[in-house]
Amino acid sequence: MSDATAPTCETLLSMFPNLFTLCIGDRTIPIRSIRSPESPEAGAAVFCSNPRVFAQALAGAASVLVVPASAAAELEPRRGSKTLLASPNVEYAMATAINAFFLKSPYTDASEEDRHPTAAIHSSVTMADGVRVGPHAVVAAGCKLGKRVFIGAGAVIEKGTEIGDDTTVHPLVYIGHGTRIGVRCEIMPNTTLGKEGFGYAHDEKGNHHRIPHQGRVVIEDDVHIGANCSIDRGTFGETRIGAGSKLDNQVHVAHNCKIGRNCLLTAKFAIAGSSTIGDHFVAGGSSTVTGHIAIGDGVQISGMSTVNKDLPGPGRYGGFPLVPLQQHLKIRAALVHLPEMRKQLGRLMKKLSPDGEA
Amino acid sequence: MSDATAPTCETLLSMFPNLFTLCIGDRTIPIRSIRSPESPEAGAAVFCSNPRVFAQALAGAASVLVVPASAAAELEPRRGSKTLLASPNVEYAMATAINAFFLKSPYTDASEEDRHPTAAIHSSVTMADGVRVGPHAVVAAGCKLGKRVFIGAGAVIEKGTEIGDDTTVHPLVYIGHGTRIGVRCEIMPNTTLGKEGFGYAHDEKGNHHRIPHQGRVVIEDDVHIGANCSIDRGTFGETRIGAGSKLDNQVHVAHNCKIGRNCLLTAKFAIAGSSTIGDHFVAGGSSTVTGHIAIGDGVQISGMSTVNKDLPGPGRYGGFPLVPLQQHLKIRAALVHLPEMRKQLGRLMKKLSPDGEA
Amino acid sequence: MSDATAPTCETLLSMFPNLFTLCIGDRTIPIRSIRSPESPEAGAAVFCSNPRVFAQALAGAASVLVVPASAAAELEPRRGSKTLLASPNVEYAMATAINAFFLKSPYTDASEEDRHPTAAIHSSVTMADGVRVGPHAVVAAGCKLGKRVFIGAGAVIEKGTEIGDDTTVHPLVYIGHGTRIGVRCEIMPNTTLGKEGFGYAHDEKGNHHRIPHQGRVVIEDDVHIGANCSIDRGTFGETRIGAGSKLDNQVHVAHNCKIGRNCLLTAKFAIAGSSTIGDHFVAGGSSTVTGHIAIGDGVQISGMSTVNKDLPGPGRYGGFPLVPLQQHLKIRAALVHLPEMRKQLGRLMKKLSPDGEA
Repeated sequence: MSDATAPTCETLLSMFPNLFTLCIGDRTIPIRSIRSPESPEAGAAVFCSNPRVFAQALAGAASVLVVPASAAAELEPRRGSKTLLASPNVEYAMATAINAFFLKSPYTDASEEDRHPTAAIHSSVTMADGVRVGPHAVVAAGCKLGKRVFIGAGAVIEKGTEIGDDTTVHPLVYIGHGTRIGVRCEIMPNTTLGKEGFGYAHDEKGNHHRIPHQGRVVIEDDVHIGANCSIDRGTFGETRIGAGSKLDNQVHVAHNCKIGRNCLLTAKFAIAGSSTIGDHFVAGGSSTVTGHIAIGDGVQISGMSTVNKDLPGPGRYGGFPLVPLQQHLKIRAALVHLPEMRKQLGRLMKKLSPDGEA
Repeated sequence: MSDATAPTCETLLSMFPNLFTLCIGDRTIPIRSIRSPESPEAGAAVFCSNPRVFAQALAGAASVLVVPASAAAELEPRRGSKTLLASPNVEYAMATAINAFFLKSPYTDASEEDRHPTAAIHSSVTMADGVRVGPHAVVAAGCKLGKRVFIGAGAVIEKGTEIGDDTTVHPLVYIGHGTRIGVRCEIMPNTTLGKEGFGYAHDEKGNHHRIPHQGRVVIEDDVHIGANCSIDRGTFGETRIGAGSKLDNQVHVAHNCKIGRNCLLTAKFAIAGSSTIGDHFVAGGSSTVTGHIAIGDGVQISGMSTVNKDLPGPGRYGGFPLVPLQQHLKIRAALVHLPEMRKQLGRLMKKLSPDGEA
Repeated sequence: MSDATAPTCETLLSMFPNLFTLCIGDRTIPIRSIRSPESPEAGAAVFCSNPRVFAQALAGAASVLVVPASAAAELEPRRGSKTLLASPNVEYAMATAINAFFLKSPYTDASEEDRHPTAAIHSSVTMADGVRVGPHAVVAAGCKLGKRVFIGAGAVIEKGTEIGDDTTVHPLVYIGHGTRIGVRCEIMPNTTLGKEGFGYAHDEKGNHHRIPHQGRVVIEDDVHIGANCSIDRGTFGETRIGAGSKLDNQVHVAHNCKIGRNCLLTAKFAIAGSSTIGDHFVAGGSSTVTGHIAIGDGVQISGMSTVNKDLPGPGRYGGFPLVPLQQHLKIRAALVHLPEMRKQLGRLMKKLSPDGEA
């Protein structure tokens, strides 16, 4: 970015006064890029939320360091010619600055045209202003696309789906019929929304008969869904992802589940059918919630954990069986000693009960 | 559904006498919809396989309740104006009734045309009556499609694949060359069948050399495969999924595996190379079978379990190491006490062997 | 294969003297196919790396048996009319022979044309000799495709991606903008490379704000990536897969990870953000590496394991918590006895401390 168009510390302080609260040093220096503390460059601002990178950042080439407000005073004597910007939330400040000044849009396709001529858009589809549809995308009958919706190349949107303003459906996404997606959502490539759920009736011969799934998937506002995820439609009603929730890659959500608002579901999280999760749930990677479970607000579970009983919340948990996180860490620590414990116990048993009758 | 076209209890009793065996109340009442006990509506039938929902269903707006034959007599005095239908298999009865009268087809695409003009169908492909191919689908040379086969939008079917009558390949599925798929199968979106397996030869320098996979994938009749699954072709021979088996989402089946008939593989199940599983296998979510394992008929494993030794079957198992299910539940219960056990053992050791020589 | 074009043992010995080192029997016999020991046929060569299949192979119809050099002398008296070929690396010898003489290309599409007329290739794309692009594939502005690159049907390659010579991108793959892929790579169907990572800043109300990911994915030479994988771009810098590494299906690699050279990542492996792995890492199926971990060269972890602390390497490890493999096997063995241990300990406690004060 040229100095003419680059923001300065002054710009950030005036535009985002809640995120940039103090400036020590030259506030007119242009910020030409944002870099990580590990790969700084001259003219860049680096954002340091973790005190462990302060030394590296101070020694590096960046012109501006953004640091936690609590650390600014301590770092001032060591800043040299660098400008320090203090923030109460360094990561949020960084996200905001990048979005405001430095974003290179990833939503590109083989065409500069708004609606690629190869897209198969049914004549009954309604599209608000600014809708873009990539090459070979398919939008079926009766779909409604809000303002500035982007449908990536090769995505397939089945009949009667409604998508809110400013939502991006990335390439090669499948969206089943009748799905509802809110505003400002993002659905990443190769994800499947709204296929039929895994529900079967079983006859006396052991044959499995599909229970048709006539419900739908509802994605509320500001939800992000990662790549290669699968979210099944409800049997009769809805499978629902609450507003503001973010799903990582390869997440699986079975039929009829209700996920609350502002949840974070890390990669490979899975939830079985008809479970309900409250708001602000945080799931570590590869964790699982089994079927017909109810989890309250504010629950966090560590990676690899499995929830197979109701949890009123709030609280932090881990393991399988799931226990409070501190207890889980103790169990993990004790597990390493199990072979030795078994030997000790064997010796004690022998000593005290030579006849094996302890 | 209007009353004129809606079935009545009478209709169900006469059409499916094995599934609807008794009617208490007005058998001429029209069934306008099928709903869940949680979301009944006037004119609906609700199907109640679980006694826990009886009270809710009796209190709700539905006109007809379908209940287990064993519960009909008990519920009769409480039915009020509702009609009770008894069934020996409530879930199967529900699936049957929905399929017969209420199904809204999910297999839709951007076109009402049987073969969308944008589909790339090689001139050598043979297609029986009623074949439909969606927009931008690709069907390569030498494929054979049976009667009423549906190929969804954007699906890619490689050379020489044969697909049986009434099979649905959903959008964005990839099917490798030479695959064989039976009749009445369903392959869900974003699934990959018949790519090369993960088999490498290793040289003395630690380089890995692909062992070319010249085998194929065979999917027998009535198999359903969920979304975002991957099933690799055999090295020389077949990877085979037995008739009637149902796979949930994100299942992985490695090269050369043989899965039996009528198996249920829940979401995120994985099986490594060259393992063989008998009929009626049931795998809980995120369970795993390692490579070169043989499992007999009638085995069930609980979620998160890992099978790494042969199992003659039948039986129910769980855990890793895998043990009989009851023992697995005891291990899980005991695990919670491990830190306390370690402390107790330490105290005993100290008391009895102050010199550490127990 | 006809006898006229079939190689003989003589051919293999002269073309690959390091892989075929000795011939016992008729070295002019034509090798018309390569089969597995389980499914031999007359005229075939079968490759037997595992002594357990020797008897089966000797009894079967194959004309040529390729066996480990160490076993040739022992097998000579039992060979009958079969020809024995000895190899120091039977699997590598097999892969080499198949590639040289027997490969049926799996890279097929609905067209015999080099660039299918339905492919959407931006006018600014540069393509070297021999590039092929399948039906409905999308190659966006500024991409550079090396010699003999194959882009499968329906694949979507975003802006500015560079792909090296002889690399195959299978159908329905998504590759995000600016990705770099080396020579001789293979990216399997339904895989997602280079979407944004799962990184969010959190405000005081519990809302999550995307940290834009401006980095990229770099795939070095000779890398294979399985089906339905997801590899996220770096936040500022690179997510990198080292040369010669092979990834199985449904692998997840989060933002900023660096995977070394010649690694083997078995199906469903997952690695969280900003972790670094050295060369020759081998991950068993469904194993996990958590975030911000550093693993040295030569580490192997068993299936279902979780690495959540740095490992200098080399070494073999397993479990969660991760311990040396031998210890992990002991823990697994002891775990089965846990309920019994708890009972024994309870009895000892009662005996020694009837007042519960041990």
